[in-house]
Amino acid sequence: METPIPTVPTPDDAVVWHADALYLADQRQLPERAEFIRMTDAGAVADAIATMVVRGAPAIGVAAAYGVALAGRAAYAAAGADWKRAIEPLLERLLASRPTAVNLSWAIARMRQLILTLDDQDPFAALVREALAIHEEDRAANRRIGELGAALIEGPTDVITHCNAGAIATGGYGTALGVIRSAYAAGKIGRVYADETRPWMQGTRLTAWELMQDGIPVTLQADGAAASLMAAGGIGWVIVGADRIAANGDVANKVGTYGLAIMARHHGIRVMVAAPISTLDMSLSSGAGIPIEERDPAEVLGCGGRRLAPAGCAARNPVFDVTPAALIDAIVTERGVVLHPTEASLRDLVGG
Amino acid sequence: METPIPTVPTPDDAVVWHADALYLADQRQLPERAEFIRMTDAGAVADAIATMVVRGAPAIGVAAAYGVALAGRAAYAAAGADWKRAIEPLLERLLASRPTAVNLSWAIARMRQLILTLDDQDPFAALVREALAIHEEDRAANRRIGELGAALIEGPTDVITHCNAGAIATGGYGTALGVIRSAYAAGKIGRVYADETRPWMQGTRLTAWELMQDGIPVTLQADGAAASLMAAGGIGWVIVGADRIAANGDVANKVGTYGLAIMARHHGIRVMVAAPISTLDMSLSSGAGIPIEERDPAEVLGCGGRRLAPAGCAARNPVFDVTPAALIDAIVTERGVVLHPTEASLRDLVGG
Repeated sequence: METPIPTVPTPDDAVVWHADALYLADQRQLPERAEFIRMTDAGAVADAIATMVVRGAPAIGVAAAYGVALAGRAAYAAAGADWKRAIEPLLERLLASRPTAVNLSWAIARMRQLILTLDDQDPFAALVREALAIHEEDRAANRRIGELGAALIEGPTDVITHCNAGAIATGGYGTALGVIRSAYAAGKIGRVYADETRPWMQGTRLTAWELMQDGIPVTLQADGAAASLMAAGGIGWVIVGADRIAANGDVANKVGTYGLAIMARHHGIRVMVAAPISTLDMSLSSGAGIPIEERDPAEVLGCGGRRLAPAGCAARNPVFDVTPAALIDAIVTERGVVLHPTEASLRDLVGG
Repeated sequence: METPIPTVPTPDDAVVWHADALYLADQRQLPERAEFIRMTDAGAVADAIATMVVRGAPAIGVAAAYGVALAGRAAYAAAGADWKRAIEPLLERLLASRPTAVNLSWAIARMRQLILTLDDQDPFAALVREALAIHEEDRAANRRIGELGAALIEGPTDVITHCNAGAIATGGYGTALGVIRSAYAAGKIGRVYADETRPWMQGTRLTAWELMQDGIPVTLQADGAAASLMAAGGIGWVIVGADRIAANGDVANKVGTYGLAIMARHHGIRVMVAAPISTLDMSLSSGAGIPIEERDPAEVLGCGGRRLAPAGCAARNPVFDVTPAALIDAIVTERGVVLHPTEASLRDLVGG
């Protein structure tokens, strides 16, 4: 039975729980079309994560939490009091949907914690409450990250961001773009240069869309154009999100981040990584342990839906890379800021 | 009157003089379609350079030389003995077709040297002979550059190239790809990683096409994926061409080269710039004086012929950048190799 789609998605309303269904803005179609896809089962949520209907590490976590709620409903419908056994394959399917963003497994682990406390009655309402809490906490975390990150920026300055770590990539407000929103509101940022971010064009399609809706001046550039912009002066910070942060402060983020951080260091420009605590994976001693997803080479062999490479051409398509902690000036979380991250300082943050 | 198109263009036969007309492989259509455009007047050649029917600094120079020959024919047809006055606006139009590649003005200056020696008779045959000589000398220079560059590579190693400095970007054989061809033939190169090279996708469309035709293993990657490839090990050299080299060794080349050179230095990977002597502009003390072309922002706002950015979005599109000499390990010309270029060593090379 179809429920009417609640609204047209906006950057801050791209993941919506409404009338017992999950609505995800289809990020593959933005900005050309702003449309929700409605989901009522966990398999559809897993597919949406795998096919990047929803992307961005925190948004993947939030969507997965709702997916667990939908899984609980299905498991109880199928197995009644035995639902905890029946939910397992659905949780595994959600977990396997993408490998790099740790927020996915973090959100599912947190839902599992709740499941441990539940009895054999219908778990749906309790699971939905927990997913809504995860969602709301992520929004609140991003507001706090925005404040803390903005406080690091002296300004006025221009900044570069890579990929989309915006409202749409999170529960709302954004991590890197949350910092940029807060800093812009405080008069500290003049203009945002957004790397287009090949191959998926998150900068072109999503970051430009988000910032233009907020009236924040944004200029797109090819990923390869960042170095000459840095050399020209005027850029104070590179501000990015993260998909997973290892215990030593190494950061997995969208491919291209590592090169951008090397260029920033070369030019004396500071690098800020903005991410919720749920992005920290203290079980990994360094970034070498972070699984880097390889997606379909077709994403590199063409663009805009059109094949451009010769037939039979090979391509590599790692969609994340790892920036060593030594190249990162600040990791900003909702619990506080770590300058020049080390394992000791990150353990203090997580423990505190 | 139409002359039949001589052949289908191949990488080594992309600029063809045939039956008093210039045939240029339309590089905007490759590899989807391999077609010549036939030109019989200088204005058409200037337009072909401006619209990137032909691109690549040495190929632009060669095409412009043929353009001067066509200009001479038209000037003599229009003004007879007064052809040297009549040719001037056509030379100016050719000169203005693109700003960054110095080979353009170099080729026209060389044709002007010949013009000074001509009388008031029909100059066409003499101008064609000179253009053919420039073309042939460029091919020969690239063979020599290939030998000299390959000698620098110990190998076996993998290499990264950016943009297309291949046969199609030159009079034939290529500069950076000439080195790669020679080094591959000598068993020194295992695989070439080709940056796709946004926004114009020269890597995807042209470098991949060239290398696959020669059976040289090539893997495409997004420009942002170069840093993680370097970190993984196995890359010995970055090998690129140049559009203009200042007296101090600063190199203007396709946007993204500068960032790639910074990344290479960070990883202890060497950077080779392969270019004919005609690419050196000893009148400029440093790269700061090199005019950097800005092309239509639409190239960045979309891809593959499809608009991807939101309406009204701003973009910057500098299509070249300047790599400081300090980041360059070797400049390879047909006259010899300069390691760690300085003004003194480049003046020695040019003077010698």
